Amino acid sequence: MSDALSVLQPLIDQLNKLPGIGKKSAQRLALFILKKGPAYADSLIDAIVHTTQDVHFCKRCFNLTDAEYCRICEDVKRDPHKICVVEDVVDVMAIENAGEYDGLYHVLGGVISPLAGISPTDLKIDALLQRVDSEEISEVLLALNLSTEGEATMIYLSQLLKNKGINVTRIAYGIPMGSQLEFIDQTTIGRAIASRQKI
Amino acid sequence: MSDALSVLQPLIDQLNKLPGIGKKSAQRLALFILKKGPAYADSLIDAIVHTTQDVHFCKRCFNLTDAEYCRICEDVKRDPHKICVVEDVVDVMAIENAGEYDGLYHVLGGVISPLAGISPTDLKIDALLQRVDSEEISEVLLALNLSTEGEATMIYLSQLLKNKGINVTRIAYGIPMGSQLEFIDQTTIGRAIASRQKI
Repeated sequence: MSDALSVLQPLIDQLNKLPGIGKKSAQRLALFILKKGPAYADSLIDAIVHTTQDVHFCKRCFNLTDAEYCRICEDVKRDPHKICVVEDVVDVMAIENAGEYDGLYHVLGGVISPLAGISPTDLKIDALLQRVDSEEISEVLLALNLSTEGEATMIYLSQLLKNKGINVTRIAYGIPMGSQLEFIDQTTIGRAIASRQKI
Repeated sequence: MSDALSVLQPLIDQLNKLPGIGKKSAQRLALFILKKGPAYADSLIDAIVHTTQDVHFCKRCFNLTDAEYCRICEDVKRDPHKICVVEDVVDVMAIENAGEYDGLYHVLGGVISPLAGISPTDLKIDALLQRVDSEEISEVLLALNLSTEGEATMIYLSQLLKNKGINVTRIAYGIPMGSQLEFIDQTTIGRAIASRQKI
């Protein structure tokens, strides 16, 4: 970096740490923030402060919230007898955007991965089992990502939950909407055929 | 946007205003800032505050600076008899990165564009002419973007400067038409400066 914009370098360096923001993008964002003026900068700072000071995990499901419980847990219109288990808060939002699910969530905070040193005790599995014991749960829907670790974690959880007599389901394997069969990988096609449904 | 992450919505909204940052990226950045913790957030806020409070235009060349004059104007190793005229501060950096130019700069702040309502008086043209009168300038190198407006502005400036008996040059063709200096590779910019021609 030359001396020319080095007066912006502290901001460029910080923006460069954000995921997907390279040196060139960071420079562009820094100049934008500068040119946009103090009103935008103040709004951005306020939002960052609010986020880092007030946002934390829901006491019950570990989704994000700025209160004791998250808005989904507090929503009386949701079915309190269903729990959807996901890895991360982004998955909560992906499922919410689909608009198909009306129950509660439980965010594990990851999946079991011996290679990465993540064991069941590092995840919110005990908290899930306690919820199943103390709340009147009729179904636990496992919606972890379909990685090797995700699948192993789903098998592990389904064993624990079945031992408690809980109805355990998992999101379906299949062909994504709008895709062409010829471009789908063999494993996905194989799974989609194996779990075919009568119409 | 669902309720699920709406606690992050204020930050997502602000990040979404940045150039090139869509709704999905803004969400990813907001989660990153949250998960990275207060130390990173504080550094980012400090950098934004520093930028918006301390950074302004150089009194002489209108490059960015946090002092009275920019680091290039203050640099005694630069040739004070040459002025390179550019549209924007990003162009100063693009040319600096090429490492071919050792003189001073003059940032116009745009180009003449009747359609966009930008007339010569909206740009730092008077300031340029004053510099040419008061500083011992042997050459003015015009390095505006090769848009229609950029070319028209170069012609306009070259007339004014030639009337003062100044040696006026422009960066060479070789830079593709219609492209923005800040996105051109260093070698091309370097070549274009090395083969600048008298006009």
